[in-house]
Amino acid sequence: MAETKLLFTPGPLNTSATVKAAMMRDLGSRDGEFVMTVREIRARLLRLGGARSADGTCEYECVLMQGSGTFGIESVISSAVHSEGKLLVLINGAYGRRIAQMARVHGIETETLDTPENRKVSANAVAERLAASTDISHVAVVHCETTTGIVNPIEGIGAVVEDAGAVYIVDAMSSFGAIPVDLSSARIDFLISSANKCIQGVPGFAFVLARRSKLLEARGRARTLSLDLHAQWAGLESDGQFRFTPPTHALLAFHQALLELEAEGGPAGRATRYRANQTALMSGMTEMGFEPYLAPEDQSFIITAFRYPRGPRFSFDNLYQRLSQMGFIIYPGKLTTEPCFRIGTIGHLSPPDITALLEAMGRVLEEMGVTPGVRAAH
Amino acid sequence: MAETKLLFTPGPLNTSATVKAAMMRDLGSRDGEFVMTVREIRARLLRLGGARSADGTCEYECVLMQGSGTFGIESVISSAVHSEGKLLVLINGAYGRRIAQMARVHGIETETLDTPENRKVSANAVAERLAASTDISHVAVVHCETTTGIVNPIEGIGAVVEDAGAVYIVDAMSSFGAIPVDLSSARIDFLISSANKCIQGVPGFAFVLARRSKLLEARGRARTLSLDLHAQWAGLESDGQFRFTPPTHALLAFHQALLELEAEGGPAGRATRYRANQTALMSGMTEMGFEPYLAPEDQSFIITAFRYPRGPRFSFDNLYQRLSQMGFIIYPGKLTTEPCFRIGTIGHLSPPDITALLEAMGRVLEEMGVTPGVRAAH
Repeated sequence: MAETKLLFTPGPLNTSATVKAAMMRDLGSRDGEFVMTVREIRARLLRLGGARSADGTCEYECVLMQGSGTFGIESVISSAVHSEGKLLVLINGAYGRRIAQMARVHGIETETLDTPENRKVSANAVAERLAASTDISHVAVVHCETTTGIVNPIEGIGAVVEDAGAVYIVDAMSSFGAIPVDLSSARIDFLISSANKCIQGVPGFAFVLARRSKLLEARGRARTLSLDLHAQWAGLESDGQFRFTPPTHALLAFHQALLELEAEGGPAGRATRYRANQTALMSGMTEMGFEPYLAPEDQSFIITAFRYPRGPRFSFDNLYQRLSQMGFIIYPGKLTTEPCFRIGTIGHLSPPDITALLEAMGRVLEEMGVTPGVRAAH
Repeated sequence: MAETKLLFTPGPLNTSATVKAAMMRDLGSRDGEFVMTVREIRARLLRLGGARSADGTCEYECVLMQGSGTFGIESVISSAVHSEGKLLVLINGAYGRRIAQMARVHGIETETLDTPENRKVSANAVAERLAASTDISHVAVVHCETTTGIVNPIEGIGAVVEDAGAVYIVDAMSSFGAIPVDLSSARIDFLISSANKCIQGVPGFAFVLARRSKLLEARGRARTLSLDLHAQWAGLESDGQFRFTPPTHALLAFHQALLELEAEGGPAGRATRYRANQTALMSGMTEMGFEPYLAPEDQSFIITAFRYPRGPRFSFDNLYQRLSQMGFIIYPGKLTTEPCFRIGTIGHLSPPDITALLEAMGRVLEEMGVTPGVRAAH
């Protein structure tokens, strides 16, 4: 069997051997043990979002949705926004644009607030827009835009969205599990993330943490059968089963991944490792002469975009292929404005893996005759 | 680690240890090896559908879609039927009703042709309806209705649908890979199945075999982003990658499952084993006094519905729980008219597994004091 490569991407990521080993069983989707596993996953996800209160009540619900993270987001957008609603999408990267695109496919009236890709969305700008466009009923933002790795201020934005009386939707795909989020204090109504990101499961489903009152309002609003968020929740609540076949193996892996996240100290513990990864990466890459795209104060520990080195000898495809042959998978860029490539620092990776990548990168650059940061000789 | 139970269900099913072992790797979703694996899966699925011609051209395309089988069906229904189209759904069970339900969610004008659950859909009845309702543009039918295990005559129906000039959609979820299908001779335009049925992969995605000319007509018609069949195909064709994160592990398992299907002699070889399973089951169950729901000539080797035994001592929940504790998972009924339970005979199961189930069933009935086929003493 071919070896597993190290994945320096925004996902799917490397997972632990024990997470993968949890998939070595076939469970029936209506089996009691599977139903219990799903119930525990949902409860643990709610706790990760801080969705509990001292008196034992909880304002939030957890819904699991088959498919990729995008399916989860489309489930929320196409279920939560009513036919007379209007969505404002805050955009500073490709994933914000995707939300606006899917809303338009569903015929949802949509406005965008566009921010340059190297700047965070400004809560003040959101407040101004909400004051000007008083018919906006829903606001959506991406927490960590993996286009650049920038992290938007979801708490500050949440406060102004709440002041305007709008429903607040946060795409926390690449951040949840590593960047601590408190649903209540960030005034989040719907948060979406997926199995194969910072919780370090395998791909196969997304999950939604939803304020119960807003979820209940979504009843009968959905524009699809498969992605009907309220119906999916009602099904899980009624007998603990999915309406349609769940990815049983991916759910078993995810349950194990949640236990391992807890063992690492939860999101705070995981953030410590990811931050160490990114610090090692940034140090080594800048030493080699690479220039990060974002200003240091805007850079997260999730993924880092680096500008292409100057000079004709650099070829990203060449770099990618050589590194891949050595067992390291890096990621292409997705910026609209300038050529970059990206290196993720999440998943089952530690600083020694970063050191190995940096050594390989150095060797490949030497073979290519590229010295980042130095202008071509002629 | 708890043991794997034997799953006598319509899916998810038992898979081989080698299929599960193929998931013990993390591949990047843009990695060359993964892209090659996806390409080979698509080519093999087309060949399974007989979609090739002597001169090397092929009229069909294969699209993989994240999510359960229902997601794949919704992808076809919500992408293929245009806004002025009208869908006729041929219904003799729960899965036909589900297709009509999803079409209505999308606002698609829908007629149904309802056949009793213990009868096959009649091609003549379809012809009559198509002659009466000349505005029908699309016809959908379920190949094997797992509600009962009945197999509808998709070739005969295909001929009358073609005569009427309508587009023909076949839900072959529970049959594809075990009941041989020839796309061209059955005049199928869209066939849908999923990873975790007779090909014996793990759940996580569905696949669609589509006549290229009809797939191209679906461009821009989709009512969703995630389930846009044409866009999904165009993405896979352009660079071999999924538009949105694929279930990489489930795809690796599926590739291995396709190799194992070929090693078993393809659908014909697999049908031989499944038929032996069902023959052993039917023989043992009728010997115990159980009465199958379908007439013998309508019964398939996929799944069998049995009527509840008479008398007050029988409890399906009790039977289910006791068998589950012994390591055997059977399946509840889904009939609208009378209480039945179901036993599937597909997946990584052989006649000795059926014998073991029958022995366990006999012991449980004895413990329950139930003698099927014998009326209660008072």
